[in-house]
Amino acid sequence: MRNLKLLIEYDGTDYAGWQRQENARTIQGEIERVLRQILQEEVAVTGAGRTDSGVHARGQIANVRTGTGLPAAEIQRALNALLPRDIAIRGVEEVPEDFHARYGARERCYSYTIIRAPSAILRNFSWFVGYTLDVELMKKAAASLSGTREFGSFCKGQSEVDHYRCTVLSACWTEEGMRLVFVIRANRFVHGMVRSLVGTMVDVGRGYTTLEEFSSILAANDRRRGGANAPARGLMLESVLYENTP
Amino acid sequence: MRNLKLLIEYDGTDYAGWQRQENARTIQGEIERVLRQILQEEVAVTGAGRTDSGVHARGQIANVRTGTGLPAAEIQRALNALLPRDIAIRGVEEVPEDFHARYGARERCYSYTIIRAPSAILRNFSWFVGYTLDVELMKKAAASLSGTREFGSFCKGQSEVDHYRCTVLSACWTEEGMRLVFVIRANRFVHGMVRSLVGTMVDVGRGYTTLEEFSSILAANDRRRGGANAPARGLMLESVLYENTP
Repeated sequence: MRNLKLLIEYDGTDYAGWQRQENARTIQGEIERVLRQILQEEVAVTGAGRTDSGVHARGQIANVRTGTGLPAAEIQRALNALLPRDIAIRGVEEVPEDFHARYGARERCYSYTIIRAPSAILRNFSWFVGYTLDVELMKKAAASLSGTREFGSFCKGQSEVDHYRCTVLSACWTEEGMRLVFVIRANRFVHGMVRSLVGTMVDVGRGYTTLEEFSSILAANDRRRGGANAPARGLMLESVLYENTP
Repeated sequence: MRNLKLLIEYDGTDYAGWQRQENARTIQGEIERVLRQILQEEVAVTGAGRTDSGVHARGQIANVRTGTGLPAAEIQRALNALLPRDIAIRGVEEVPEDFHARYGARERCYSYTIIRAPSAILRNFSWFVGYTLDVELMKKAAASLSGTREFGSFCKGQSEVDHYRCTVLSACWTEEGMRLVFVIRANRFVHGMVRSLVGTMVDVGRGYTTLEEFSSILAANDRRRGGANAPARGLMLESVLYENTP
């Protein structure tokens, strides 16, 4: 069997998330449907991150095992020709048989975009926050996230994981005109973590939560303590890194 | 009567262009419909540029005369609350009664975005060009556009204008990763001019048209000479300038 690694970009607006579902259109479901058509065999695509409904990706990674003899470039062309335009395959490459997109990932990077004024162009890729935010406080909250700790306060609903321990490698807010962008890199993320962090930091920015309370929520490792989730549409899976990738 | 100037952003994907039409959804039509609702009076909105179907704007300017006593900021809030999310009003301000969004404009700026690889995120705001382009040749073609001349070779279909004379203030291609962006500023544009220029410059980039032929097309002032129009979705009306604006 060959093992192919896919680099995938998608606009998640019209999808019920990454993961295959019986009665809903999903990114994984669409890619598997089109791959079956191209490869004429049953396939299962494994994604690095199971993004929620409405979440986007510039750099989702997946792998698929196949018996086909088709060259990788040809599979990429066929995928882009047959997939809906809101899913784009940016690369297909041959990888060793033991490459696993999910278990092999050593680092993931997400961005979250807030806009300070309504935008027609960015509407599906951002959260419009109309009230005044103290961005300096939000930057301080973000700076306190680096390091290894349990992120249970920022884990959403029922989760399959046995622990909430994540190592945050970097986390910061940057301002670009009317955009306020949060970028976070970590070895792993618990379910809903970025949206819950963003929602809680926005509470800090608008003065609902102090920095001391933010620290206490972070330390509590208790999902009842985190703030509301920021909307899905502002979240973007930017990249996934593996061992042996620079 | 008060005269209000609107700064408008829109995603033109789902519209039959700017201009009001009986049986199609247009930007002007939507804004007028919502303004009638807010102001409880008949209104006519005058836009600076009548963008075609599928074309976008970050900085369309319009003006509207009204007898309302509502503050400008309140009208802006009401517009953004009632308009579809693919139209955003970025500003409403009081202007002198003789301000006319179309006739008063002294400069307009458009951008056109080409992408070199399929993109799900940018799909509605760009033209995917898969073949190899000699960008240096396209830059030379763009550099030859500055100055005042007749642009009849790049004017589309039936046009109401009595002459094709435009003064191009700047025109250049820049590369940003997989994006290739053309930005052009001029005192005025004839109908379809940017898309026709882009289509013809892409012909230069792919070697179908030499720079000498490009010069000869430009000099001909004959609409039968220009290349095919680039798709509407790559075009963005970036800004409109008026006398007394910096």
